[in-house]
Amino acid sequence: MEWFEERLETDEGRAVRIGVTAKLACVRSPYQTIEVFDTASFGRMLVHDGVIMATERDEAHYHEMIVHVPLAVHPAPRRVLVIGGGDGGTVREVCRHAGVEEIDLCEIDEQVVSVCREYLPGLTGGFADPRVALHFADGAKWVAEHPGHYDVILVDSSDPIGPAEVLFRREFFASLHGALREDGIAVTQSESFHYHARIIGQIARFGREIFPVYRYYYTLIPTYPSGVIGFSFLSKRFDPLRDGDPGRLPFLADLKYYTPALHRAAFVLPAFTRAFLPD
Amino acid sequence: MEWFEERLETDEGRAVRIGVTAKLACVRSPYQTIEVFDTASFGRMLVHDGVIMATERDEAHYHEMIVHVPLAVHPAPRRVLVIGGGDGGTVREVCRHAGVEEIDLCEIDEQVVSVCREYLPGLTGGFADPRVALHFADGAKWVAEHPGHYDVILVDSSDPIGPAEVLFRREFFASLHGALREDGIAVTQSESFHYHARIIGQIARFGREIFPVYRYYYTLIPTYPSGVIGFSFLSKRFDPLRDGDPGRLPFLADLKYYTPALHRAAFVLPAFTRAFLPD
Repeated sequence: MEWFEERLETDEGRAVRIGVTAKLACVRSPYQTIEVFDTASFGRMLVHDGVIMATERDEAHYHEMIVHVPLAVHPAPRRVLVIGGGDGGTVREVCRHAGVEEIDLCEIDEQVVSVCREYLPGLTGGFADPRVALHFADGAKWVAEHPGHYDVILVDSSDPIGPAEVLFRREFFASLHGALREDGIAVTQSESFHYHARIIGQIARFGREIFPVYRYYYTLIPTYPSGVIGFSFLSKRFDPLRDGDPGRLPFLADLKYYTPALHRAAFVLPAFTRAFLPD
Repeated sequence: MEWFEERLETDEGRAVRIGVTAKLACVRSPYQTIEVFDTASFGRMLVHDGVIMATERDEAHYHEMIVHVPLAVHPAPRRVLVIGGGDGGTVREVCRHAGVEEIDLCEIDEQVVSVCREYLPGLTGGFADPRVALHFADGAKWVAEHPGHYDVILVDSSDPIGPAEVLFRREFFASLHGALREDGIAVTQSESFHYHARIIGQIARFGREIFPVYRYYYTLIPTYPSGVIGFSFLSKRFDPLRDGDPGRLPFLADLKYYTPALHRAAFVLPAFTRAFLPD
């Protein structure tokens, strides 16, 4: 068995190795190198510029939590925008919500979508839903050009190096606010509280300056460097600790990770996070 | 920088590498090989037979959660037994509880204690507490020989290979029950729900057959293979979701991981665990 190794400076002397049995694809797009591997025990694995994005075994832990938390809090989400997310997992989960009428995916890298359609069909099924429109465009520009349009925006980005760097800037959070309707919610991928205190503290500051409600929650991904990835919950009106009815979702029995109880528990953070995520 | 690599068959094709700057100790005891490293960003690291036991940076995540959850649920814990735990971190946390009168540590491997006293003094400070007695003995035998003696027993063991294998058998859980007073609580290290469904399912079955209350909870350790480690909460009377008052602990401001809210949230598990941990 060969080993794929992810080793990042930002992970501070910790590396993850995944046993791989075959390399299925390696595509150099204008934005990044996209690879797909078969692994010994995580199914197929998507890698961007050497960083693990998703494996078939644990991708639902991420995609269910980025989607169902905000969509269970918003009482009537009709228009949803996904930024990034070219692997399709986030769109697939949004499609479970029958009340959603319009799902825009804005992915800068068309090659991510074509590679995933070919090698990760379990993630891309939602692209066939008639409510879904694919836009290969810059997410930061897209939100700036759609003021007051969306009920929910999900920023399913990679890390703040490479093409996603702009999605961690203050201007982008202001644009998100502008693209949401008056009771809209945005959720953005916001790194791991084990390693990225500085980035998370910065996002939380932007979030609190711009939105009336800012909360941080997390999910567990064993193939990510610290086993944890977090999300910023940015909201104009609804508070995830007070509003919404997670128990009303009709497809709960089909989910792998999300539960109504976990919906609340995911916002409860270890004591050490208070240093960069004060209450 | 050199890399220490932990690669286990049971981790199914996933390995963790930690950047190390020096090897400080390597001792072959009758039970295992004990090593201590200095690492690039996790402080000192204790390794038994190639498996990471603790790093200075994240050991509190484990030790606070194995200790304060049961000790906050039990209304008046006086006699506490720690099995394993020769690194001292669990005893250190028990010592914070002023009402505890007697703390027995039963560690089979005396060398673990002596290595940790020398290289990990931040963990072993509790050994100087006059309430603490060290016993270098077999934990399974010790509990069998102390019927009805303890209010709380904490099994701070390594994985079920090597010296700790016996601590995952049904007979041991029956002995734990026997060594507890009529309202006693035991907590045992119980692996990761990401990887060890079979072992966890087995422990939960034993636990439910033998104890009126069985619950599973977890903590987050970025240097462990899946980022998660879980505990079995085995109790004759008190239920951690109903009893106890975590907010009463007077030392909460000194803790790094445990909070009263996390005390409850740590019992909320992902949907996929229902297959081996039914409600």
